[in-house]
Amino acid sequence: MTYCVAMRLNEGLVFLADSRTNAGVDQISTFRKMTVFERPGERLLVMLCAGNLAVTQAVRQLVFAADDPGQTSVWSARSMFDAVRVLGQAVRRVHEQDGEALQEAGIDFNCSFLFGGQIRGEEMRLFHVYAAGNFIEATPENPYFQIGESKYGKPIVDRVITPETTLGEAAKCALISMDSTLRSNISVGLPLDLLVYEAGALRVTKFVRIDESNEYMKMIRSTWGSRLRQVFAEIPDPAWRDAPAGAGGLRLETQETAPVRAPVPAPAATASGNDEGPIAASIQLVAQQQRGKDSPR
Amino acid sequence: MTYCVAMRLNEGLVFLADSRTNAGVDQISTFRKMTVFERPGERLLVMLCAGNLAVTQAVRQLVFAADDPGQTSVWSARSMFDAVRVLGQAVRRVHEQDGEALQEAGIDFNCSFLFGGQIRGEEMRLFHVYAAGNFIEATPENPYFQIGESKYGKPIVDRVITPETTLGEAAKCALISMDSTLRSNISVGLPLDLLVYEAGALRVTKFVRIDESNEYMKMIRSTWGSRLRQVFAEIPDPAWRDAPAGAGGLRLETQETAPVRAPVPAPAATASGNDEGPIAASIQLVAQQQRGKDSPR
Repeated sequence: MTYCVAMRLNEGLVFLADSRTNAGVDQISTFRKMTVFERPGERLLVMLCAGNLAVTQAVRQLVFAADDPGQTSVWSARSMFDAVRVLGQAVRRVHEQDGEALQEAGIDFNCSFLFGGQIRGEEMRLFHVYAAGNFIEATPENPYFQIGESKYGKPIVDRVITPETTLGEAAKCALISMDSTLRSNISVGLPLDLLVYEAGALRVTKFVRIDESNEYMKMIRSTWGSRLRQVFAEIPDPAWRDAPAGAGGLRLETQETAPVRAPVPAPAATASGNDEGPIAASIQLVAQQQRGKDSPR
Repeated sequence: MTYCVAMRLNEGLVFLADSRTNAGVDQISTFRKMTVFERPGERLLVMLCAGNLAVTQAVRQLVFAADDPGQTSVWSARSMFDAVRVLGQAVRRVHEQDGEALQEAGIDFNCSFLFGGQIRGEEMRLFHVYAAGNFIEATPENPYFQIGESKYGKPIVDRVITPETTLGEAAKCALISMDSTLRSNISVGLPLDLLVYEAGALRVTKFVRIDESNEYMKMIRSTWGSRLRQVFAEIPDPAWRDAPAGAGGLRLETQETAPVRAPVPAPAATASGNDEGPIAASIQLVAQQQRGKDSPR
């Protein structure tokens, strides 16, 4: 699998990709999933890919090659919209060439791409291209896209990223999102490709390949987890109705507090002989008064 | 969809389930996914389910009904292992009855269950039952299971839960994990069923149905997101090699720092005329010195 995330912010664009591919857990390799199309001062486009590696490599090759005279290519496209259509067309051509054979072999035609950047005379744009060659664009309300194993890393991005987020914060957020994914899914792995694009630069100015020895990533990996546990510890545990009186506060009980119970078969009911016991014994959850940080835990 | 999580700790068991079901986004309902089998003082079993609602309801009905004389039922099983096999057999019987018709309709036979509890004379046990009726058991190394939309809420559970975690902390962790899932996926929704079982109790002692008005959950929902953003803000942003000198520290550069670049077509290369420019201009990521909490941001 793969995890890639890209963000379109007022200050610029952030692209982050892992580099692990696998065909089953016993065939794991490293392939870089970020490709840069750069003509300094004129255009800077970045493509991230996820899915079947043979499919995405074939698409990439077609995008590289799509430069016949008279045909639009990513190099000659006058707008990001024209450029992303070149990518969409490449996806469709690979599907024409390989789709049937893959289907016969029971293999999904599985690929998706994040494609963004800037062409001189136009604003930055960011697209998510699907396996059918169609695509959607990032907006101020939806300033980021993810492909691949996106769910583990989505909560932190959802909570942090807006168009106003700075590039430094966004790069940090992308790396934390990646860290959560790396921690919970072995099909995503280092090294990472991180590219931070500053609006108007029209060239690569900030790029780093991050491996196990990168001190910033090491700091994220050790700090985020421990700070998360610290915040976790500072939030009060739930108190139940039978908690000591002093612990009370914010006591709010729900209307209906019995779990759904399976009917108890008759012989057992007579053996137990207590019809209301279990329901009455159920204790409700109430919130403890928020404790000061210095109170003993 | 669904999100359920169950944990087996030294102190007891924690079960948490949402209650949203959907058949497409235009058909959303509330069904409770937790079922309790209780014979106070003798056994307490809890079942959580995810997947196709018709399948899981049929399985539940069979588990309720499986009490023919001479046949093992969840009520007569002498061990949790025998009880979970009753559930596994029920899954297989529903597959026999409905599997073919579902397949013809192009519908997956999709169901999974978390099943745990305690029977007098035995330790607490927790199982994850698959759609084939087979199952695995939680161990000290793997003290929790999730079913349904599990990925959003996995990172916090991975970082916090060990067998030594207290029941209060585990309930809090389950609710935070649920909060991350609710925030990022609309197919999971309130109300929640939370059951906390204390080892040896052999009855329901702590159960709560959590809806929008529950103060503890409201506190989690508001506090966790804001504390997460606070911790996020306290972690230094990455510094790049062109950062002001004072920001330096932990400067560690990776061996190979160029992105993968598409070959620039010939006419463009002559137009730009700068072969090493883009690569040389790429700046590497370095970690800033960790700032004190009181330093200005």
